[in-house]
Amino acid sequence: MHYIKGVGMTKFDIENRNSMDFAEDAIMLALDDSGLNIDDLDAVVVANSDNAFNPERQRHFNSFLSSFFRRRMPIIRTPAVCGGGGVALWTALRLNYNNMLILGTDRLLTAPSELVTDQILEAADRIYEQSEGMIFPAQNALVAQQHFMRYGSNSDDLALIALKNHENAFLNPKAMFYGKKVSLEKIKSSPVVASPLRLFDCSITVNGAAACVISKDKTNIKISGSGLAVDYMATFERDDMVTWTAIKNAADAAYKQANLKPKDIDLAEIHDAFTIVELVSYEDLGFAEKGHGQELIRDGTVKLDGKLPVNTSGGL
Amino acid sequence: MHYIKGVGMTKFDIENRNSMDFAEDAIMLALDDSGLNIDDLDAVVVANSDNAFNPERQRHFNSFLSSFFRRRMPIIRTPAVCGGGGVALWTALRLNYNNMLILGTDRLLTAPSELVTDQILEAADRIYEQSEGMIFPAQNALVAQQHFMRYGSNSDDLALIALKNHENAFLNPKAMFYGKKVSLEKIKSSPVVASPLRLFDCSITVNGAAACVISKDKTNIKISGSGLAVDYMATFERDDMVTWTAIKNAADAAYKQANLKPKDIDLAEIHDAFTIVELVSYEDLGFAEKGHGQELIRDGTVKLDGKLPVNTSGGL
Repeated sequence: MHYIKGVGMTKFDIENRNSMDFAEDAIMLALDDSGLNIDDLDAVVVANSDNAFNPERQRHFNSFLSSFFRRRMPIIRTPAVCGGGGVALWTALRLNYNNMLILGTDRLLTAPSELVTDQILEAADRIYEQSEGMIFPAQNALVAQQHFMRYGSNSDDLALIALKNHENAFLNPKAMFYGKKVSLEKIKSSPVVASPLRLFDCSITVNGAAACVISKDKTNIKISGSGLAVDYMATFERDDMVTWTAIKNAADAAYKQANLKPKDIDLAEIHDAFTIVELVSYEDLGFAEKGHGQELIRDGTVKLDGKLPVNTSGGL
Repeated sequence: MHYIKGVGMTKFDIENRNSMDFAEDAIMLALDDSGLNIDDLDAVVVANSDNAFNPERQRHFNSFLSSFFRRRMPIIRTPAVCGGGGVALWTALRLNYNNMLILGTDRLLTAPSELVTDQILEAADRIYEQSEGMIFPAQNALVAQQHFMRYGSNSDDLALIALKNHENAFLNPKAMFYGKKVSLEKIKSSPVVASPLRLFDCSITVNGAAACVISKDKTNIKISGSGLAVDYMATFERDDMVTWTAIKNAADAAYKQANLKPKDIDLAEIHDAFTIVELVSYEDLGFAEKGHGQELIRDGTVKLDGKLPVNTSGGL
């Protein structure tokens, strides 16, 4: 059984520093928070994306961290694109050392948007998706269209999700939109990226790092369950356009391990590359029946003062 | 406790196919050898390098494999440059599922040599090594020079290691040098790459894949021990120019777990990017005292018919 002993995070922003500088800040904050020092760590698991995005030309991040720590403990890398942080935590739990550091760091803003889009698209199927220009806003626009058509959700629901997340970011000094007011009108009148998704339905790219120290020492934050699932590559391979089976399977594994049901959950931080991803995730995580995700944003359940706040730190 | 249940390997060669084709061949051979089929697998750990080398534009290999298997089991990636295969095995053992597949696949020959050299150099320190042109043949040439100076080894010892490995490759249908005679004269008169290293002291780049099925089912190949260690990034950070602390530490952990001593080892397959790496590894693995590695190749100990054959499959 492991517990969260400390956490650390940089501001997620446009600041242009070396990846290692971001990582260092997050690591030191997490260590300070944990009351441990570098010598207490038994292993490190890192999830950064392949560093094609930035000009640092430093591929072997494992050894790079060993140099930084001046420690020769086991350090492994588990890149998994958007799921990297979760995969690193899941893997660390199974490595089962006493004190471990989990680190996520990325720097997406150094390269021009065209290059970032091109590189991220490499996470889509090469033959049927990349060659058809099925970039992720386009893929998720199709999901949104299907959800609207089948279940009666609409663009206003997505706008409410964007508004909620920006309102949460407004309060979070680590978020890029900290202290920046975004109105519902601004969201609804923002440029269309891939219909029905507008600019504010799509996450921004930022630079930043987050770290977490987990330990077998008991603290008041127990890690009750953790699940990992992998799904097929291409959008067209999904069983259902508006269900991510990997989310369902990973959540089911975590619920089972924790002996909890979706209704027991008080707060959730979930991937929201696009507003529609958050909406579909409400359903795949079991917070709403399939086709009813939009009710949770309409009735305020997932807002900061609701029964089940989602993405309290901002997101998008 | 895990056992090796099956292994599979493609020919390592200049054949230019998709990474997935290589992976598929190795996977199917390993599964056939194990008597298991895809549905019996509980998890997969993959070590491929970041695919900057090839034009496949397929970054998210985890999902790619999920599509291939038509299975949604946990699949994680643990890239670690030259140590990737070992890291994947070490990690899989700790994930502790019943039946797991470990896969290594890479395709280095698609890109021009200049690009491969440039990309591999990203595994060296960015500020002090990359900018000084300290490519790996140059780094290892310095190690060879130090070993020669301090311990009386010489270029002839390295040539004997190259000859041994090519003689072993001559017998191995999976090796690029299968059936290709390489004489000692040819090795000794090959072009100097970085003095004292000649062409035959340096490994070639190839395309290929290898896979292994491990299982809790008892077979006659028990995995008795496995160690992982990470060392600092840069050559100049080493405690000793001619010792790889990571090799010593990983080997010590594996020996301890297996309750074996170096003298108990009957056969070794070790990383030999350069002949001098193999020579230094004899020492770091405890097969010879520091400074005496060359004696093992001089007296034939590490040859195929010696007391401790090393890199029987070819290497280099």
